[in-house]
Amino acid sequence: MRSAPEILPAGEPPAPAAARIRWLAAPTSSAWLEQAIAHPDLVLLDHAHCERKAAGVALQLLFRYPSDAPLAEALSPLAREELEHFEVVMALLQRRQVALRPLPAPPYGAGLARAVRREEPQRLLDSLLVAGLIEARSHERMALLAQHSPDAELRALYGRLLASEARHFGLYWVLCEQRWPRREVIARLEELAALEASLLAELHPQPRMHS
Amino acid sequence: MRSAPEILPAGEPPAPAAARIRWLAAPTSSAWLEQAIAHPDLVLLDHAHCERKAAGVALQLLFRYPSDAPLAEALSPLAREELEHFEVVMALLQRRQVALRPLPAPPYGAGLARAVRREEPQRLLDSLLVAGLIEARSHERMALLAQHSPDAELRALYGRLLASEARHFGLYWVLCEQRWPRREVIARLEELAALEASLLAELHPQPRMHS
Ligand SMILES: [Fe+2]
Ligand SMILES: [Fe+2]
Ligand SMILES: [Fe+2]
Ligand SMILES: [Fe+2]
Repeated sequence: MRSAPEILPAGEPPAPAAARIRWLAAPTSSAWLEQAIAHPDLVLLDHAHCERKAAGVALQLLFRYPSDAPLAEALSPLAREELEHFEVVMALLQRRQVALRPLPAPPYGAGLARAVRREEPQRLLDSLLVAGLIEARSHERMALLAQHSPDAELRALYGRLLASEARHFGLYWVLCEQRWPRREVIARLEELAALEASLLAELHPQPRMHS
Repeated sequence: MRSAPEILPAGEPPAPAAARIRWLAAPTSSAWLEQAIAHPDLVLLDHAHCERKAAGVALQLLFRYPSDAPLAEALSPLAREELEHFEVVMALLQRRQVALRPLPAPPYGAGLARAVRREEPQRLLDSLLVAGLIEARSHERMALLAQHSPDAELRALYGRLLASEARHFGLYWVLCEQRWPRREVIARLEELAALEASLLAELHPQPRMHS
């Protein structure tokens, strides 16, 4: 396993290899943070669905590439971990008496899915990068909530889930790097990261993890 | 949690509540056991796919019923456990130098899926019973391999996975019983179990966990 490229500005504190890739093209706005803090239970409910979807994405890749052992060895434990997060968030929802119910999704996920190229092997590269971008954004936003939420219970939850999400985007990075030259991965990541940031540039009116 | 009905013949040794339901309408033939023992690596490879599919079935139910908290609380840990089994089987395949590759599926799964009624709530009942039947059959066949395989490594593997599969069909039973009158569940189980047995009545020429 080679280490990930260091493309953060000089002077940054040392970080685990995988966290040193600059996944995100733009930071989350303070408008999102205000919206999320004003609707904690709604964001928490959306977060439960996000964890389930993260497990679904990983499992879907296992079904789409049933001969790829390294992919399966990486993504099966990841899917298990996302399901564990799902269970942790569900338990907290129950404690807070928030009923589980579906929520209309913001345009974020569908916008990213549309950018995945249809032909292989580009489809796999794009799928891995999009999954990694979503992990990176979730990680960034959970870090904001872990720091700024006025609710101690939520600060603790997001603080607890943070570390795994950082590992997850590192893991998607490694899967790309095992399969494509680093230069190619970074070039495509930059395009997708620009799209990802543009999808969040305007705050979606419904409070969500990715509004 | 009510205990499951005891519908085994009198004189059977006591069994855990969930194992006392008569899921299977007919036992596995000795022809299957001979076929499976003659093709251990092929059955093991198919088994890896079965574990992944078992996780997929549970996760699919979470996506289809996103408001059903008791369902999610039961099936999310089950999906995690199936993924763990998938990883255990993959590791053994790798040790035995069997490459991961897709295998044409026997008619079993599709035949059961066709029997699932399309309208709710029958669709949920049938989906749970079909999933439980597959677990029960897997359990029965793993028990046969754990006892009769000439390969000590495989006997150990199947012995190790057995106990979870018994819990799994018990869990699908409990989910049905939480939602429907026991009489209704048993009546539909009997129909589906008859179909399940008929799908296996003739040995499929390709060696599979459900050939
Ligand atoms: Fe997660
Ligand atoms: Fe994650
Ligand atoms: Fe299993
Ligand atoms: Fe199972």
